[in-house]
Amino acid sequence: MSAPRRTLHLNAFLMNAGHHDAAWRHPAASPERVTDLRYFQELARTAERGLLDSIFFADGLALWGKARHNALGGFEPLTLLSAIAAVTEHIGLIATVSTTFNEPFHTARKFASLDHISNGRAGWNIVTSGTLDEARNFNREEHLEHSLRYDRAREFLDVATKLWDSWEDDAIVLDKEGGVYADTDKLHPAAHRGEYFGVAGPLNVPRSPQGHPLLVQAGSSEDGKEFAARYAEAVFTAQQTLADGQTFYKDLKSRLARYGRTEDDLLVLPGIAPVIGSTEAEAKALERELTELQVPEYGLAQLSGMLGVDLTGADLDGPLPALPEERDINGNKSRFTLVAELARRDGLTLRELIARLGAGRGHRVYAGTPEQIADQLEEWFTQGAADGFNIMAPVLPTGLTDFVDHVVPVLQRRGLFRTEYTGSTLRENYGLPRPANRYTRPTG
Amino acid sequence: MSAPRRTLHLNAFLMNAGHHDAAWRHPAASPERVTDLRYFQELARTAERGLLDSIFFADGLALWGKARHNALGGFEPLTLLSAIAAVTEHIGLIATVSTTFNEPFHTARKFASLDHISNGRAGWNIVTSGTLDEARNFNREEHLEHSLRYDRAREFLDVATKLWDSWEDDAIVLDKEGGVYADTDKLHPAAHRGEYFGVAGPLNVPRSPQGHPLLVQAGSSEDGKEFAARYAEAVFTAQQTLADGQTFYKDLKSRLARYGRTEDDLLVLPGIAPVIGSTEAEAKALERELTELQVPEYGLAQLSGMLGVDLTGADLDGPLPALPEERDINGNKSRFTLVAELARRDGLTLRELIARLGAGRGHRVYAGTPEQIADQLEEWFTQGAADGFNIMAPVLPTGLTDFVDHVVPVLQRRGLFRTEYTGSTLRENYGLPRPANRYTRPTG
Repeated sequence: MSAPRRTLHLNAFLMNAGHHDAAWRHPAASPERVTDLRYFQELARTAERGLLDSIFFADGLALWGKARHNALGGFEPLTLLSAIAAVTEHIGLIATVSTTFNEPFHTARKFASLDHISNGRAGWNIVTSGTLDEARNFNREEHLEHSLRYDRAREFLDVATKLWDSWEDDAIVLDKEGGVYADTDKLHPAAHRGEYFGVAGPLNVPRSPQGHPLLVQAGSSEDGKEFAARYAEAVFTAQQTLADGQTFYKDLKSRLARYGRTEDDLLVLPGIAPVIGSTEAEAKALERELTELQVPEYGLAQLSGMLGVDLTGADLDGPLPALPEERDINGNKSRFTLVAELARRDGLTLRELIARLGAGRGHRVYAGTPEQIADQLEEWFTQGAADGFNIMAPVLPTGLTDFVDHVVPVLQRRGLFRTEYTGSTLRENYGLPRPANRYTRPTG
Repeated sequence: MSAPRRTLHLNAFLMNAGHHDAAWRHPAASPERVTDLRYFQELARTAERGLLDSIFFADGLALWGKARHNALGGFEPLTLLSAIAAVTEHIGLIATVSTTFNEPFHTARKFASLDHISNGRAGWNIVTSGTLDEARNFNREEHLEHSLRYDRAREFLDVATKLWDSWEDDAIVLDKEGGVYADTDKLHPAAHRGEYFGVAGPLNVPRSPQGHPLLVQAGSSEDGKEFAARYAEAVFTAQQTLADGQTFYKDLKSRLARYGRTEDDLLVLPGIAPVIGSTEAEAKALERELTELQVPEYGLAQLSGMLGVDLTGADLDGPLPALPEERDINGNKSRFTLVAELARRDGLTLRELIARLGAGRGHRVYAGTPEQIADQLEEWFTQGAADGFNIMAPVLPTGLTDFVDHVVPVLQRRGLFRTEYTGSTLRENYGLPRPANRYTRPTG
């Protein structure tokens, strides 16, 4: 008997009209449907038809960028995913929630609720909030310093996991005759008193099907990687080249041992924006079409946001101006470094940089046929750069439908991807264990 | 042409196994389903089959009472209602959210999202949190003083309504050709700087179908009534007698003018726990059956919580011990007074008081045939005590099914209740206007 073959995991990262910043202007896009629940339900069902592990929504606590030139604003992820849970059966549901401007009691509770609602399909992409626009919606004139955000995030996770364990799995005894609903010896206070939070507990939600929602993380700074090594079970990351991907993968996996974890306890899922054509020429033409639809003013504002440097009025046909060092950046440190290196490495003008970033905001973009895209995924997967991928369709719904109908079958033929759902929870489909409850004594 | 006849509005207040504190022990109840989404979806569809205006979930930010003797804990209301929205079409969806331990940006956003998800069926029951158990889940060792809670609630509403108006209804222009998604002249910051909150805005959700969710309030203290007169469009209230109901109704309606509102701008919905039988004897028998299933220890703990006075060890067959004055109560002032008066008026022992409170926690309980229950509703409705009712089935699902199948038809035959949904939003079904956006200039 041989060990089961290692297969890859695919997450559909959904975003309004699509990931390309000009997607909403493309004829195939549906920007008029970004507040239409059925639109997202259809996308989720397409992903489920393709047997993908999960769908995922990013989030921010302020109106991102400039809604003047992009289809921004729409649903809040937890309410949206609950409504999607009601019309799907298998696919995982991953919501982004920030630890910076939330309270652990609320957040732990909502994820436990979503996990019950979906019969064990909830995932939490844990982020910290690093923009001034977000801070200003929560009574602050400046945002929390980078390392303090991670201090708070660690304590937040400490509290949340205590709350998820506050009901043992068999706490509800339901003895109608004796009048005993729950065995209160199996309910545990969190009794947390820390630097950021004081939380008594227990949670007012019984332990959920997965015990804890799947924990996902997406920051690739030094603090981010250390946080991921300690808590995360899946990591979304932006890596431009195979070599960068391999370095990141090895680095992150090597950190797990110090937290008593093994390399199998965490999946690395780099982002890829696949621009799919039935020929390579067709794919390249779609890529050019999207570039031509870009509004440079919007791209420049986005780039300014990514770098934390105001580029308004800069010469689009000149190089990227001199930038500060990463250590002086208090926003998204890893994205800053990636963008600066990309411009330097390929000697891009600002206009070219904006075009390169338009489809994936720093994530890798690859235009080609389904076979070529499958080749790329297989190479990263077999060469130590990925356990799976975060699929970012440039234009929705077509980019997702094309991936499901044309790329997934190639991966299946190669034995790289499932041909049916075998697990019933998100953890089971990702091949990750259900966490034991810290309070439950071993029996037997 | 005559004016349309005034008809009543009905809200189904849903609670785990039912409102009676012994409901979970009754053979007709389904306490094993309180974390089963389909259970609540079925209840919502039953209410929708009965053409009710809305369903409603109460909420607290701590594990209520003692889970040892009641089916407590379960879904968080906003995630639950989003998942119910996906399988219903007409019925309003009202969630309780506290202004004491939340942030207005999050709360305004989630209700705007639910309103989009449900195509205009979201309602917010605005509460303040007054228990020590809740405070201790949010980093405090004591809860906020009663009048300060209402100060905070007023400012919270001020911010939330600004955020709901921060996108004008026609802000999205979707000009693909010109590259303009939104007319940013029609996006408005909240620019709020107050005592409790600083919120820049705009919201990251476009204006929702109802403009603002329906605003509901349920506190009947002096502060609560004044808050309701200013903001609420529907009020849930506990009133034991017709005379008390009439006094409350008149009092509340008389306060509206000072906020530039008319009596039609706010609906008063007293709670009623109808114990339904095909004969009066059958109804009384069900009432007795539930009383006999009560766990006195649980009732005493609940009563202690309502009064803010520890009654542990008190003689069940003696009278209610001496109580402090309402002005010294910092929890739910109106419930305190109601319970104290009920015990005094009817000369009840503690055991009798616990039995009377078991079915409705201070709300009116009425056991009878469908005709008798309809008589009661009609009397309160026509005698100036109610614009409709908050229906609290003692046992679920049977208590709701019986109401829909047997009481609703009687009300319809009497011309007191709709025979089809005529509006498409919750506001339309309640006969309430869609709020104008404060920033939109009149045209024409």
